[in-house]
Amino acid sequence: MDPRPVDFSRTELGELMLPHQANVLGKVFGGTILAMIDKAAATAAIRHAGKVCVTAQVDRVTFQGPIEIGEVVRVLAEVSYVGRSSLEIEVRVLSMDPKTSAERLTNTSFVTMVAIDDEGRPCQVPPLELKTDDERARHEAARLRMEERKARR
Amino acid sequence: MDPRPVDFSRTELGELMLPHQANVLGKVFGGTILAMIDKAAATAAIRHAGKVCVTAQVDRVTFQGPIEIGEVVRVLAEVSYVGRSSLEIEVRVLSMDPKTSAERLTNTSFVTMVAIDDEGRPCQVPPLELKTDDERARHEAARLRMEERKARR
Amino acid sequence: MDPRPVDFSRTELGELMLPHQANVLGKVFGGTILAMIDKAAATAAIRHAGKVCVTAQVDRVTFQGPIEIGEVVRVLAEVSYVGRSSLEIEVRVLSMDPKTSAERLTNTSFVTMVAIDDEGRPCQVPPLELKTDDERARHEAARLRMEERKARR
Amino acid sequence: MDPRPVDFSRTELGELMLPHQANVLGKVFGGTILAMIDKAAATAAIRHAGKVCVTAQVDRVTFQGPIEIGEVVRVLAEVSYVGRSSLEIEVRVLSMDPKTSAERLTNTSFVTMVAIDDEGRPCQVPPLELKTDDERARHEAARLRMEERKARR
Amino acid sequence: MDPRPVDFSRTELGELMLPHQANVLGKVFGGTILAMIDKAAATAAIRHAGKVCVTAQVDRVTFQGPIEIGEVVRVLAEVSYVGRSSLEIEVRVLSMDPKTSAERLTNTSFVTMVAIDDEGRPCQVPPLELKTDDERARHEAARLRMEERKARR
Amino acid sequence: MDPRPVDFSRTELGELMLPHQANVLGKVFGGTILAMIDKAAATAAIRHAGKVCVTAQVDRVTFQGPIEIGEVVRVLAEVSYVGRSSLEIEVRVLSMDPKTSAERLTNTSFVTMVAIDDEGRPCQVPPLELKTDDERARHEAARLRMEERKARR
Repeated sequence: MDPRPVDFSRTELGELMLPHQANVLGKVFGGTILAMIDKAAATAAIRHAGKVCVTAQVDRVTFQGPIEIGEVVRVLAEVSYVGRSSLEIEVRVLSMDPKTSAERLTNTSFVTMVAIDDEGRPCQVPPLELKTDDERARHEAARLRMEERKARR
Repeated sequence: MDPRPVDFSRTELGELMLPHQANVLGKVFGGTILAMIDKAAATAAIRHAGKVCVTAQVDRVTFQGPIEIGEVVRVLAEVSYVGRSSLEIEVRVLSMDPKTSAERLTNTSFVTMVAIDDEGRPCQVPPLELKTDDERARHEAARLRMEERKARR
Repeated sequence: MDPRPVDFSRTELGELMLPHQANVLGKVFGGTILAMIDKAAATAAIRHAGKVCVTAQVDRVTFQGPIEIGEVVRVLAEVSYVGRSSLEIEVRVLSMDPKTSAERLTNTSFVTMVAIDDEGRPCQVPPLELKTDDERARHEAARLRMEERKARR
Repeated sequence: MDPRPVDFSRTELGELMLPHQANVLGKVFGGTILAMIDKAAATAAIRHAGKVCVTAQVDRVTFQGPIEIGEVVRVLAEVSYVGRSSLEIEVRVLSMDPKTSAERLTNTSFVTMVAIDDEGRPCQVPPLELKTDDERARHEAARLRMEERKARR
Repeated sequence: MDPRPVDFSRTELGELMLPHQANVLGKVFGGTILAMIDKAAATAAIRHAGKVCVTAQVDRVTFQGPIEIGEVVRVLAEVSYVGRSSLEIEVRVLSMDPKTSAERLTNTSFVTMVAIDDEGRPCQVPPLELKTDDERARHEAARLRMEERKARR
Repeated sequence: MDPRPVDFSRTELGELMLPHQANVLGKVFGGTILAMIDKAAATAAIRHAGKVCVTAQVDRVTFQGPIEIGEVVRVLAEVSYVGRSSLEIEVRVLSMDPKTSAERLTNTSFVTMVAIDDEGRPCQVPPLELKTDDERARHEAARLRMEERKARR
């Protein structure tokens, strides 16, 4: 399998937050953001793997203050590590008030996805081609997280 | 009011299509796409105007073949014309099969939005700064569409 | 195929607008109305054709002022033109404040649908039986719109 | 308060059933129909009363066989009885396969609504003007149901 | 078939009410509660029967005052009667303000479900094992309701 | 403030999974489960605090195999640690096939919530009353996680 570079599968999802996505306080419901993280990670993983991928693990997600209804939430996802059939996806959530175009980082997380074949079994995915020092450094950090995850099981 | 360039408010929204967005045939429901067009146009208009904007008109939308559940739909919106309180937004819809990363243009439309102030009345918006010949040509085409719309009323 | 009169497939859909259908301003979200137009047009087309129909094109939709949450939106659809496998559906949207029963026209549009057979290919639909002068005049206007659409492609 | 005839508030809601409204068997979820009954009854009651109305009671609802995704469900509601602040609404649910235009009655129910004023207290509603023998017979049947309901409390 | 005791299939569903579940008054929409009743009854019936079950009838549902957004609604369902292929499920709806933990009964209903086999035909379900005098008394009351329902048809 | 025991705020939410909650593979969408975790944690926190609480952090969530549409998902939440204004909630997700009543643990997570007063500022919450050795051991483990979280910032 030919390796694929990080930017091959880089993914951006974005939505304008409407009132049906509010929580009891009238702010964006946390579950809405968690669902967007899951969808962005799945998209990046499927694009890299060329196969359907399922969520194995969502790492710690920190909420840095509320997101307002009427803001535009963007979720950026890129593959940070590739094992045999598993992938780690780094996800960043940004929220923007469209009236001022001021955007801020609201959440970061790492999601582990597993590629599966047509019979639903884990299957091999292409290696990740690392081009820059920054990509190599992030990949090394991701590898340590994968090892720490295995050790915790 | 200082003019704002086209790229100031350029907007991309994107969603992974899930089964709850299907029509009777199991393809993406047309209304899902129309709603995404409306949200992307509103976001670009609000960003340019710095004010809340409401939909005045959605031009002809052509559907070039079905979109499958599991595809990733991106909607690109940019301001193509600015009047006193109205804006025309050009919207392009692209759909991608994430397993192949092959993306195709599925719809194009022009949406007219109106900026409104805190009392709900139409209010003035910043002029559009045109930098390139391409932007000037698109602006002229948009101006002709605006005139044709007024003539039709 | 026996022709079918206009009233054979005339369709009315209607919904009470609830808060989950609101936009950022607390009015009915434009995408909600666009989705109702699509569903009403599809229903009228399927009834006339006796086959599943898919949306090919939604003509210009003008929004004449906001619709409030708590209003009752009715969408009236009738077949205005029939080609070999395509149909034009005229759609009118009315909104009523149930507390006063005052109803107003909020949108009009023309939607082009295509009938498809079990293999997903366009298939022939019954001719439209025109009974009154009004129906004949509307059919002629629709025929001109269909020609103008073809010319634009 | 001037009496209002039955047909003043007669209401029809209608929806094309899409896959997101399915139950585990792929048929229309019963809760979807119950929600439509509630919305149609509320609309008829609000129109008669000229006031917001809330649901006090939904009588027995019988499901006569499944409704398929892709069918068009119509809910017809009309005021059958009016007390001081309460109204009984007769609701009939019809489902149609748009490919054949064959429609069948799938449910019938009686819903009791209460009109409320701006402080949220029950308030008086206009009397019901009965014009035909059929309307008088239905009103008498409704009056007996209202008494039976009071006796059960 | 071995009989199954009442507590084998006793079911509790629960949800935190969010703004997208509101009606026009900003309280929980009645249709939301009716849908939860249907889901809880189906779950209890499927668990007792070990087969898919469909809703045949929802008995009178009384709404004892509004439920607020932000409250937690619990629906408790238990099998009260078993015929050859039909089951009666007793459903109680409780709503709690989480800030005070004060909970109140808001609705009660009886739902009749029918177990169906893989061909979609009604099929036999296990008898209900009655252990306590209270269970026997409730079963007898349920049997009388079933007879009254048959007499009404 | 009087301390409150663990069982005062113990919370169970539960839902029957319907087709609109499916992912691209027809299994339950991960975002659905993440949203249920968030709602259950918020409910337990609000009950303990007697105040509105917002999500500060969701710890690692592991998905142990897919959940099928038609299964019943239960989310159990209990307060495991209380600081001045923050609370840690332990959440366990169980999924049951109602046809066999076989239930399995599918996810575990720890959610940090913050109680806020009417001005939206963090506010003090009642201490947690620990009654059993098990509760004390879990509280100590939670305290270590809270310290580790602070250290990571």
